[in-house]
Amino acid sequence: MTPRPALSATPPGPSPLSPEELRLLDAYWRAANYLSVGQIYLLDNPLLREPLSLDHVKPRLLGHWGTTPGLNFIYAHLNRLIRAHDLSVLYVAGPGHGGPGLVANTYLEGTYSEVYPEVGQNEAGLRRLFKQFSFPGGIPSHVAPETPGSIHEGGELGYSLAHAYGAAFDHPGLLVACVVGDGEAETGALAASWHANKFLNPARDGAVLPILHLNGYKIANPTVLGRLDGAELEALLTGYGHRPYLVEGDDPAEMHGKMAATLEQVWADITAIQRAAREEGATSRPHWPLIVLRSPKGWTGPREVDGLPVEGTWRSHQVPLAGLFESPDHLRALEAWLRSYRPEELFDDSGRLRPELTALAPRGTRRMGANPVANGGLLLRPLELPDFRLYAVPVPRPGGVTAEATRVLGTFLRDVMAKNPVNFRLFGPDETASNRLDAVYGATTKTWLGPVLPTDEHLSPDGRVMELLSEQVLQGWLEGYLLTGRHGLFSCYEAFIHIVDSMFNQHAKWLKTTNDLPWRRPIASLNYLLTSHVWRQDHNGFSHQDPGFIDHVVNKKADVVRVYLPPDANTLLSVADHCLRSRQYVNVIVAGKQPAPQWLGMDEAARHCAAGVGIWSWASTDAGAEPDVVMACAGDVPTLETLAAVDLLREAFPDLKIRVVNVVDLMTLQPHEEHPHGLTHQEFDRLFTTDRPIIFAYHGYPWLIHRLTYRRTNHPNLHVRGYKEEGTTTTPFDMTVLNDLDRFHLALDVVNRVPRLREVGAHFGQRMRDRLAEHHAYIREHGDDLPEVKNWTWRG
Amino acid sequence: MTPRPALSATPPGPSPLSPEELRLLDAYWRAANYLSVGQIYLLDNPLLREPLSLDHVKPRLLGHWGTTPGLNFIYAHLNRLIRAHDLSVLYVAGPGHGGPGLVANTYLEGTYSEVYPEVGQNEAGLRRLFKQFSFPGGIPSHVAPETPGSIHEGGELGYSLAHAYGAAFDHPGLLVACVVGDGEAETGALAASWHANKFLNPARDGAVLPILHLNGYKIANPTVLGRLDGAELEALLTGYGHRPYLVEGDDPAEMHGKMAATLEQVWADITAIQRAAREEGATSRPHWPLIVLRSPKGWTGPREVDGLPVEGTWRSHQVPLAGLFESPDHLRALEAWLRSYRPEELFDDSGRLRPELTALAPRGTRRMGANPVANGGLLLRPLELPDFRLYAVPVPRPGGVTAEATRVLGTFLRDVMAKNPVNFRLFGPDETASNRLDAVYGATTKTWLGPVLPTDEHLSPDGRVMELLSEQVLQGWLEGYLLTGRHGLFSCYEAFIHIVDSMFNQHAKWLKTTNDLPWRRPIASLNYLLTSHVWRQDHNGFSHQDPGFIDHVVNKKADVVRVYLPPDANTLLSVADHCLRSRQYVNVIVAGKQPAPQWLGMDEAARHCAAGVGIWSWASTDAGAEPDVVMACAGDVPTLETLAAVDLLREAFPDLKIRVVNVVDLMTLQPHEEHPHGLTHQEFDRLFTTDRPIIFAYHGYPWLIHRLTYRRTNHPNLHVRGYKEEGTTTTPFDMTVLNDLDRFHLALDVVNRVPRLREVGAHFGQRMRDRLAEHHAYIREHGDDLPEVKNWTWRG
Repeated sequence: MTPRPALSATPPGPSPLSPEELRLLDAYWRAANYLSVGQIYLLDNPLLREPLSLDHVKPRLLGHWGTTPGLNFIYAHLNRLIRAHDLSVLYVAGPGHGGPGLVANTYLEGTYSEVYPEVGQNEAGLRRLFKQFSFPGGIPSHVAPETPGSIHEGGELGYSLAHAYGAAFDHPGLLVACVVGDGEAETGALAASWHANKFLNPARDGAVLPILHLNGYKIANPTVLGRLDGAELEALLTGYGHRPYLVEGDDPAEMHGKMAATLEQVWADITAIQRAAREEGATSRPHWPLIVLRSPKGWTGPREVDGLPVEGTWRSHQVPLAGLFESPDHLRALEAWLRSYRPEELFDDSGRLRPELTALAPRGTRRMGANPVANGGLLLRPLELPDFRLYAVPVPRPGGVTAEATRVLGTFLRDVMAKNPVNFRLFGPDETASNRLDAVYGATTKTWLGPVLPTDEHLSPDGRVMELLSEQVLQGWLEGYLLTGRHGLFSCYEAFIHIVDSMFNQHAKWLKTTNDLPWRRPIASLNYLLTSHVWRQDHNGFSHQDPGFIDHVVNKKADVVRVYLPPDANTLLSVADHCLRSRQYVNVIVAGKQPAPQWLGMDEAARHCAAGVGIWSWASTDAGAEPDVVMACAGDVPTLETLAAVDLLREAFPDLKIRVVNVVDLMTLQPHEEHPHGLTHQEFDRLFTTDRPIIFAYHGYPWLIHRLTYRRTNHPNLHVRGYKEEGTTTTPFDMTVLNDLDRFHLALDVVNRVPRLREVGAHFGQRMRDRLAEHHAYIREHGDDLPEVKNWTWRG
Repeated sequence: MTPRPALSATPPGPSPLSPEELRLLDAYWRAANYLSVGQIYLLDNPLLREPLSLDHVKPRLLGHWGTTPGLNFIYAHLNRLIRAHDLSVLYVAGPGHGGPGLVANTYLEGTYSEVYPEVGQNEAGLRRLFKQFSFPGGIPSHVAPETPGSIHEGGELGYSLAHAYGAAFDHPGLLVACVVGDGEAETGALAASWHANKFLNPARDGAVLPILHLNGYKIANPTVLGRLDGAELEALLTGYGHRPYLVEGDDPAEMHGKMAATLEQVWADITAIQRAAREEGATSRPHWPLIVLRSPKGWTGPREVDGLPVEGTWRSHQVPLAGLFESPDHLRALEAWLRSYRPEELFDDSGRLRPELTALAPRGTRRMGANPVANGGLLLRPLELPDFRLYAVPVPRPGGVTAEATRVLGTFLRDVMAKNPVNFRLFGPDETASNRLDAVYGATTKTWLGPVLPTDEHLSPDGRVMELLSEQVLQGWLEGYLLTGRHGLFSCYEAFIHIVDSMFNQHAKWLKTTNDLPWRRPIASLNYLLTSHVWRQDHNGFSHQDPGFIDHVVNKKADVVRVYLPPDANTLLSVADHCLRSRQYVNVIVAGKQPAPQWLGMDEAARHCAAGVGIWSWASTDAGAEPDVVMACAGDVPTLETLAAVDLLREAFPDLKIRVVNVVDLMTLQPHEEHPHGLTHQEFDRLFTTDRPIIFAYHGYPWLIHRLTYRRTNHPNLHVRGYKEEGTTTTPFDMTVLNDLDRFHLALDVVNRVPRLREVGAHFGQRMRDRLAEHHAYIREHGDDLPEVKNWTWRG
């Protein structure tokens, strides 16, 4: 290690370890390191009973050594702390590519063999443990859903700290130890997550202990934080609101003493903070401790390979000794490296960890690999849900009343929050009120640990609405909260949910994988409410207009994603109730917040949502017969424009047989064999006919409807209108006009596509074009929509 | 303002303003504020010549006042600094929703009327200026492409600081003043961008002056940074590597003095830093100055409305006085607010800004609205490109040699970098070497201002490869670099480019809008090289496997997006050359880095890429006649598997007429009327036939091919294989098997779909299934692919 000015933070006390304790702790660490190297390299000869030969080595060497000894070091020391204070600890491995370390430790503590009995505590089990790692049919190279004790994949870096806080919320007895890699610390999500400590209530929540692991290098570069001088680093971490402690060095014995002492100090700090909040009523934001662990990358690995330094450099990131089949020297170096851990001192003849080392692991669910928090479904209790029907907007006749869908939902959510005071939270980037969910403040406030001024509203440490202007941190919090057995809803401007596209990917992949792991219990679904959507961002303009998250979501496995487009308040209530009861999905709900006509009474809404798609016979003129045209719609604004177009058409062509089909559950459009919600082809044909024109008004990018329906019989006659990336700051109705989704264009589409209207419709068509011209002139003069458009109501 | 412990940073010197200068500066600020309020509210009566009535007011009030007076304050003071020192300054408005402020200032300085002559410097121009804002047919409410002097939209928060650094790179004479809102500072992208100062070389690059604008509130909440105490804030900013200066208060006169003094001090600091680096050879990383401006939100706006405090609170975020048509009090309050700026002192009878105020603005291109840096196309010089043909891999016969496509590209990029030492940079998240582009280190290094250790490689302050483990910061840097007239390439792991999905959206929207603004000159395209792609992430596993960025990109306007899937090294060279020459696009290139067979010699590669799609007659057996089956492929791995399948089929069925079609330019598949690269229907039918089965092996999610081709004649016979979200840590070939994209499945697809093979193919089909079983058994035993698969070569 190159000397650098040390962090000047409070030094901890002397080492609490006796020489014997130190010796055993080091042996435990060596065992974890040995098993980690074994996983990366060995197919056989797991105890090195014979000289290492190429027969014992994997043909493809896949894995990440560099971060692993540090992860193992921390794990061993947390084991000691857990036993010393009988703690419940969740280990979040930010550098999740150090997978072998977490597997090794859960194996050493016995959890792994309990979950996977075929990987037993003996030589055969060791052989299997080694072989399966990064091996076809085996386990991934990263910390993964398959890894007991993990809620955090760690392949895509940056989300560890947000996950850690999400896990700690409402788990007052939990300590979340979160290893933050200095590589991942460069990511946006991680950088923003440091301020999560302003949202952790020591009276109500558990503790998060960030352990910033400065091993100095990424794949090929030094890290930014690793090269800060001590004063700058201390300023930064202090500025983040932490009390930093430094554990620095490369001599194992010395480091064991420092780490043990520091963890004791840190735990004393945490208990003092929690005692002050819980017993003495302290409400000011505490300065939580944080550990900086500065240790060499690839610690205890090969110092040099082929004359180049490896330990303590970026060269130890993945597999420090490669080309074993080409270089006998490398094979010998590997054997020496493995033997440097003295496996014969660690495992008995049968391959079992020696009892004096086994004794160092905590017992039962105190083992970090067996903490039920990391298998959240075990802890999951269903939400207490009020009857959503009680919040219904009375709809005496379709279109007869106006309501704001999300505002109505807010009243339901208020009571959900009241009835579930410790296992449900609402997440939103400073938009809960803007999204008109502010009824929830009748039951709770926004979490806020900072100073509160007289002009502030709805802020307190006890709040359960999580607002921070970072979609990434919110997503990470919610994932952590769900993965540890609770429920939540994320409300977001539709366009900006794309900020978490990649995080959604990872969560969907986690769900997909856990569906195949029977020991992982189902968790609550991740629920998105996307509002302030593309059609009602006329005021914020083009940057706020993007309905593409749906497209992104439907690329993931059909059995984990659901998309709902409730057209009004009562359908939104029904959909939300359904989503809050569901498990193991990502549910995307798109719904507006602006005053809009209401179509369905509660009973009808519930029936419609249960079916997911259906004919609105009250709006149709086909009287159950074969229609001339199907006017389909999905989404609140497209539904409104479709009905307004129907109104125009009914007046002009009383004989025209129009069938109105409304789609709430977008997945019904997919073939049944591709999505469990998909209609059968018979059902689809019954609704959409096999040969009549379909004018489909869709909320998002129109081609998504084609992608979902290209196998349907009547697809050749399907004509979709939707958002085609035209927008600016304008009026609400003009947004639909710019994208040809408005009533006039839809009515024109019908006239152009229904054969028997082709001639009689010419005059009507000209009227529609005139109305569009009138619209254009009017908005440029008045800055507002035509009164006839604004005041239009369904005449039924 | 609530008193808080002040930041203890070095206080600046005394105010440099004489009382008269102060009076004029304040008047200029009042003028900008007046014009800002006017834009939000007024349709008419722009000089308040008559009492304000409802006839003068917009029916819909859209805009953001809260941040605007602060933006105006900074603009006025930067004007003074520019004139005092003859500076070239770019103004980046992080809180871009304060659009009226930037429009007001560019109008006051005269730029706006030069760009938009219809908005003149007179009463009619003022009326137009006011009306057009957030008005149909007018201008957006945010800082936008339409705003002179801006490279930054600012509707989606978080990217200002990265844009600012991107603009400053290689512009040694430029000062980028970047206003960071305390709301946006909570985002991940912004939080990560603070460390960009470790990548700014004071000898070669311009300066970035972050101005952290703490007005304390977001839409509905206090901000995290706004509520830190002074010591914590100072620690944080110092920890970020800055020397912070505080300008705090609400009394305008006092604040003018403080701000002017602070800007003088800051400029002195910057010149000292640049002098040390440029003249004295200093190479250590400087501590750049930073200003914290703590001023009330909605400063100078209504103190109270309806008895509730507004100025200095979140209530001033958007339109502080609403409901004018319902409340005469509000109308009177609006008039009083407007008159508080004393417009009669600011504008003469004709509506022109008075000369003593006009004199405060810089002249010509020193005006921030007229700085050519903010209209990068004006400065853009074409790259000096070496002849890409010189880097060709000799391909004596198809499949006859093996090469790593990106490694070959690296040699070309090395010489691009050498030939363009001040206007091209390569961006990548710690992956340039991993992506095998490391030949570039023959011409340059990675930018690194921190300490360098003996074991480091390729690091120096003069480097032109930008590596930081944040895709968001890299994207922001590259956007800033391109928007200010330079060129670049972003190489990234394919899966993790989703981290910038939303940033891509905003850039694509910017390009789309600027295409309609003749005064905005075309800029270089944003080029992505996505490698380490889904099919070759067998070692990192499921989290690293996602080809969906292409799907995301193609939702944007056809005239700004291009997607290329070169199947080998020579086609990659040709595509890269094309992309580096292009303007106003986002180009996505997906190409592998692993050793792979090469198919086309350079001339043929160039021809193939120019066409975008074509029949590979050397691989086909249809001899120009109507084939039995079309085997189409897009992407390097799908091409390899397709050819291997063809090989199997040729051997088994010598009479089978197979046509191999390779697609490089994905947009050729779309109908010509939807994308300029799209094939006509005749061309498409000629390649893909009108009735023969098409087995299409595609790099990404298979349904994208359906979405692009559903209007094609032969779409009903199209069968697409691609990534269907199946993966883990396994072997490379097993990745294709898991997704049915491998040679055996493709050959089976042919047998199942070509009518005349249905019977004779049964035995062959069984053989394919046997091979798959053999594969499964082999990889689980050996952890590596079947030798026949690994060693397969095209026999031609």
